[in-house]
Amino acid sequence: MGERLVSTRSAVMQFKLMPIGHVVTDASHEELRHRTVVSKIIIDRKYAKGLRDLEGFSHLYVLFFLHEGPKWKGKLSVHPRGRIDLSERGIFATRSPHRPNPIGLTLVKLLSRRGRTLTVRGLDAYDGTPVLDIKPYDEEDSTPRPRVPRWWRELKRESKRKHRVARV
Amino acid sequence: MGERLVSTRSAVMQFKLMPIGHVVTDASHEELRHRTVVSKIIIDRKYAKGLRDLEGFSHLYVLFFLHEGPKWKGKLSVHPRGRIDLSERGIFATRSPHRPNPIGLTLVKLLSRRGRTLTVRGLDAYDGTPVLDIKPYDEEDSTPRPRVPRWWRELKRESKRKHRVARV
Repeated sequence: MGERLVSTRSAVMQFKLMPIGHVVTDASHEELRHRTVVSKIIIDRKYAKGLRDLEGFSHLYVLFFLHEGPKWKGKLSVHPRGRIDLSERGIFATRSPHRPNPIGLTLVKLLSRRGRTLTVRGLDAYDGTPVLDIKPYDEEDSTPRPRVPRWWRELKRESKRKHRVARV
Repeated sequence: MGERLVSTRSAVMQFKLMPIGHVVTDASHEELRHRTVVSKIIIDRKYAKGLRDLEGFSHLYVLFFLHEGPKWKGKLSVHPRGRIDLSERGIFATRSPHRPNPIGLTLVKLLSRRGRTLTVRGLDAYDGTPVLDIKPYDEEDSTPRPRVPRWWRELKRESKRKHRVARV
């Protein structure tokens, strides 16, 4: 609430965000990667009424703050998944937490809502992660066959070989 | 980039974000709704190198600040699309700009990248909108048949009847 736009001086413009809730999970960081884990999102009491009607949707977007991520120090390329054997890629071509605005975005399946607690499958956010927004997902968010580069496809394939990655 | 976490006092926790670029379009607000418009995103010079490799992806997520949206005054339900003839719905069950953290999220088709200019189709952000993040989209962001409530489906159907809404 209050003034959100902190400053608008040409290049200097900052925005303030407040968490609306947080993630609860006892899964390890490694387990969370595989997008099969069931987590809870507890929304703060003051925002609880905003959840009304959410249970009509099977899938949601969760926006969250990558609060345990590394502090961004201006680096504009990263080794995907920290794999130093692979070429560096531009940060905006990755989902790395190394980014100017460390906002995480994940598509999850909504399993249930009880009051201000959402039970979801597929959230890769750590326990205690501050949640910024919840948005409903619909067919316009889906596109049948997105093209991805070869290096990305190979990374995913490898990850699937190691673990069964479920589609949420 | 300084301290991002402004305060962590239990319930009071704020985050600062900085725009990484902005949207350029001469389409009207009404036209932008239909997700067929071609827009440009100009990324600031200091972040330009982060765009490397992005052209390997056909689709992207654009996160942006809903800077022209109404200031949120604590309302937790809205009439979808401002249609006062329809029942109010919880804000998190809508994509309304009325939300505690007014971050917009849109799936777009990447038509081209030239240096730090992205040409995209389907972005519904207004001219001058501050862009917060760009993320690659892959098949894990897609889910074949998401369930949505009836009121949502009817709103979409109406909108499609009035205008041809293209799938990006």
